Amino acid sequence: MNTYVNNENNTVFNVGLEKNQANYAALSPITFLQRAASVYPNRTATVYGNIHRTWQETYDRCLKLANALRSRGINPGDTVSIIAPNLPEHFEAHFAIPMAGAVLNSINIRLDAQAIAFILEHGESKVLLVDKEFSSVVKAALELSQNKPLVVDIDDPTWEDGETIGSIDYESLVNEGNLDTPHFAVQDEWDAITLNYTSGTTGNPKGVVYHHRGAYLNAISNSISWSMSPHPVYLWTLPMFHCNGWCFPWTIAAMTGVNVCLRHVRADDIFNLIKSEKVGYFCGAPIVLNMLNAADDDLKAGINHTVDVMTAGAAPPASVIAGMEELGFNVTHVYGLTETYGPSVVCSWHDEWNTKPLEEKAKLKARQGVRAPMLDGLMVADPVTLKPVPKDGKTLGEIFMQGNLVMKGYLKNPETTDESFSGGWFHSGDLAVWHPDGYAEIKDRSKDIIISGGENISSIEIEDVLYRHPHIQEAAVVAKKDEKWGETPCAFVALTPGSEGISDKDIIQYCREHMAHFKAPKNIVFGTLPKTSTGKVQKFLLREKANHL
Amino acid sequence: MNTYVNNENNTVFNVGLEKNQANYAALSPITFLQRAASVYPNRTATVYGNIHRTWQETYDRCLKLANALRSRGINPGDTVSIIAPNLPEHFEAHFAIPMAGAVLNSINIRLDAQAIAFILEHGESKVLLVDKEFSSVVKAALELSQNKPLVVDIDDPTWEDGETIGSIDYESLVNEGNLDTPHFAVQDEWDAITLNYTSGTTGNPKGVVYHHRGAYLNAISNSISWSMSPHPVYLWTLPMFHCNGWCFPWTIAAMTGVNVCLRHVRADDIFNLIKSEKVGYFCGAPIVLNMLNAADDDLKAGINHTVDVMTAGAAPPASVIAGMEELGFNVTHVYGLTETYGPSVVCSWHDEWNTKPLEEKAKLKARQGVRAPMLDGLMVADPVTLKPVPKDGKTLGEIFMQGNLVMKGYLKNPETTDESFSGGWFHSGDLAVWHPDGYAEIKDRSKDIIISGGENISSIEIEDVLYRHPHIQEAAVVAKKDEKWGETPCAFVALTPGSEGISDKDIIQYCREHMAHFKAPKNIVFGTLPKTSTGKVQKFLLREKANHL
Repeated sequence: MNTYVNNENNTVFNVGLEKNQANYAALSPITFLQRAASVYPNRTATVYGNIHRTWQETYDRCLKLANALRSRGINPGDTVSIIAPNLPEHFEAHFAIPMAGAVLNSINIRLDAQAIAFILEHGESKVLLVDKEFSSVVKAALELSQNKPLVVDIDDPTWEDGETIGSIDYESLVNEGNLDTPHFAVQDEWDAITLNYTSGTTGNPKGVVYHHRGAYLNAISNSISWSMSPHPVYLWTLPMFHCNGWCFPWTIAAMTGVNVCLRHVRADDIFNLIKSEKVGYFCGAPIVLNMLNAADDDLKAGINHTVDVMTAGAAPPASVIAGMEELGFNVTHVYGLTETYGPSVVCSWHDEWNTKPLEEKAKLKARQGVRAPMLDGLMVADPVTLKPVPKDGKTLGEIFMQGNLVMKGYLKNPETTDESFSGGWFHSGDLAVWHPDGYAEIKDRSKDIIISGGENISSIEIEDVLYRHPHIQEAAVVAKKDEKWGETPCAFVALTPGSEGISDKDIIQYCREHMAHFKAPKNIVFGTLPKTSTGKVQKFLLREKANHL
Repeated sequence: MNTYVNNENNTVFNVGLEKNQANYAALSPITFLQRAASVYPNRTATVYGNIHRTWQETYDRCLKLANALRSRGINPGDTVSIIAPNLPEHFEAHFAIPMAGAVLNSINIRLDAQAIAFILEHGESKVLLVDKEFSSVVKAALELSQNKPLVVDIDDPTWEDGETIGSIDYESLVNEGNLDTPHFAVQDEWDAITLNYTSGTTGNPKGVVYHHRGAYLNAISNSISWSMSPHPVYLWTLPMFHCNGWCFPWTIAAMTGVNVCLRHVRADDIFNLIKSEKVGYFCGAPIVLNMLNAADDDLKAGINHTVDVMTAGAAPPASVIAGMEELGFNVTHVYGLTETYGPSVVCSWHDEWNTKPLEEKAKLKARQGVRAPMLDGLMVADPVTLKPVPKDGKTLGEIFMQGNLVMKGYLKNPETTDESFSGGWFHSGDLAVWHPDGYAEIKDRSKDIIISGGENISSIEIEDVLYRHPHIQEAAVVAKKDEKWGETPCAFVALTPGSEGISDKDIIQYCREHMAHFKAPKNIVFGTLPKTSTGKVQKFLLREKANHL
């Protein structure tokens, strides 16, 4: 950092000028809800089927729920968990639970009973809100768990499947509360607001703790990254359990927007809501964009306004960007981790790129980019020395982040917390190059890189080539131990139906034609790929397999 | 406040999760400049005549100036003053001076030598940057002042008048610095960033201290209030010495916009720049809008884009709003004080107001409004008990603010600081009513209210009526002591040329026809009104005069 420090505090500017109640307030996204309700009480806050609730109604419900939780013995610093789709209740939980002084723990709906049980125990949940769609897996989790939280059913009348398993339902709990009791006032903006478990591909998930300050700042950073219009209409395609929906519940409150809620991510629902609610913004993984691209033309027809889309998780291919642009959708590529409140890096667009050919635009947009407005530091550097790599677009380094959009740390895990912060930077574990214009582009996860004959080979680069093969449906590349080279790339490949004639030699040959020879995989293994509950390929299993070929 | 406090900090969420260099950074607007220069190095930052500088160039110049100031012995917490129009140098000072760890003191260019001398002494300035246009008054001030700062000339080649009076010029000072030395890194966001003297109508000005946190947050609050587009083109009609240009130097850096600089606020320059630079935003007092309205049609012609205008200081009359709308200018009314970083209250617009008749729209827009996005508390309350007044649009109370957009305090003035923060709220001194929709509307300064027979009479209300009289050019109303009523309103009036036939009786009669009889002034005094250097009427002089009639 191009800075120096001086701690002389004995100037006239530090005498008789202390913080007090008049001139200081803890940063907390709860204030966004308070302001929305006081300035625009009658504007719509949440839409779900026939339910339309205003900001005043939403604030009142949160106030009552916070009060009800307090009355049931929830104390500041207690954990309240939720397993639910993107319903209005899930949005409300992002405010009501901190308004009780408690910490929101939104659990991935795709986890199995064992993983849920682990989280309930590790996170010490006192209350669990659960939507009926997930009551059977939660029931099994509760049987496994030593911790037995108060279970509250979210009983969506438009969802018929699933039984209620709680001792009270959400609406009754809300109605236990009253409007007259003050809610919790955050005094220290460093206090925890949420707890998000990472979906690690190995071992137990880690509990990432967010604080009020970071939630407030990333909410605002989102709105600036996207230059959001006033009162944005936001469609909830991105799960709220992913980094608290990338902090967008708080962004939408700050902007007094509309939360268009959605149980399932389906092309018909999405297009119909975009048209009927005039949705202007949504977020989603490239797979969601793919699904929309592939939808029927009659679904796509009739959108006469601009839609801004934020995507992360993988670079959107050119064909996806082109398809989106044809629909009038403008795609912003962002990057982040659970540890950085979701997107903390953004591929900030330059106007002069608009006139470039599509392929080139897609290449520019495929880069992860630069620090988001409120991230304080971003660098690509040597993983050990933390010396920044040259901005040559070639030298591989690890991505490091610094500042207010970095988590408080991992819950009850000081060793891993310290490790991840060693040297004063957060270690992302993602390997990238730094382009001359300062934009970072990820090449691999650090543990997935293949070091062959002293050369770093990006598994992602090989996978990109494999995905372009017309008969390959899915591919994953890992390192295989090798006496001569140290490691060599080994590809696991699932073919499209009817491609049985393709041999491993064909594929290796194809790779050699499309990349440096030393990078081409030495082994090809056919078959389906093992995945986690969130759809991530379990490369550690493939590595074991590769080493036992 | 509808909140309660709990200081239990002994939860699992506060163990092993402390602040460190990786996960915490002090909020400071300097980071906006760093990001603008690193992400958009080649975008234009400042425009002034033939000068066009990019964000990289601007950052480099700031880095060098900061380094040069350090080399000349400026230490963290030292004061550096500037007296200059809205030039690129003035913009740079908003970053370079804090980057030296110093505190920027931007002095009102309309002050006389004595007032400037007072500020240089009270603020303990170590360096004074001065534009040639003001060198003669500054020279006189320096002769009066016991404090003799290093004087640096800003030698604008497009401005021929005035002599250079310093020991070095700005460009040479910049060139003394180097790019390789790190600049000051703010460790405590509560550290002072600027010092702004109020233009009190009585007594010596007070030094209002801003900190990095507040400057950062109000900069962002501005951009949200206005829903600014990316890379906004901002015209510098509002003086940078007014609350640091309402914090817009930092806003424009945060948005990587363009600062279109301007020496004098003239209709021809403004219209020409709006057209040639495609200006999208500017701020100004209603008098500036008036001037633009009154400009020649050929100046006004040819604007084909929307221009957003922020105004404060007085409510914009319906005719001004109508004129602006005809030009395609959209007016936002804001309110604040030097003590609240400029605008901290905004008349947030509601879409449903668009269809109302102009007069009604103007009435709605004339209200000061609600808290800006990042102001934490706003209320209209009893000045003594701090009990909020009913939201009935009638009951008079004082406006109080709370939170991060309230100053650090008054420099070397702990008594007045404590007084202004007593009860945990900042006392604005402005009297207002609170409308049922939560919007505040100012009726008077607390010291200007007239209490007659136990009734509060707003001097502003009487002045509004007087201003509608076709032969009155200027008017000011103050309290005159009265044995029977306690106080009665006394009006000081300047007539338009050729209105000599108008008598005091005519005016009193006019008032009685347009307001409750008890509110009509009992005395009318003709003549010009005494004003401060910033154009504020000196009501304390009029009060003395009224009591000696």
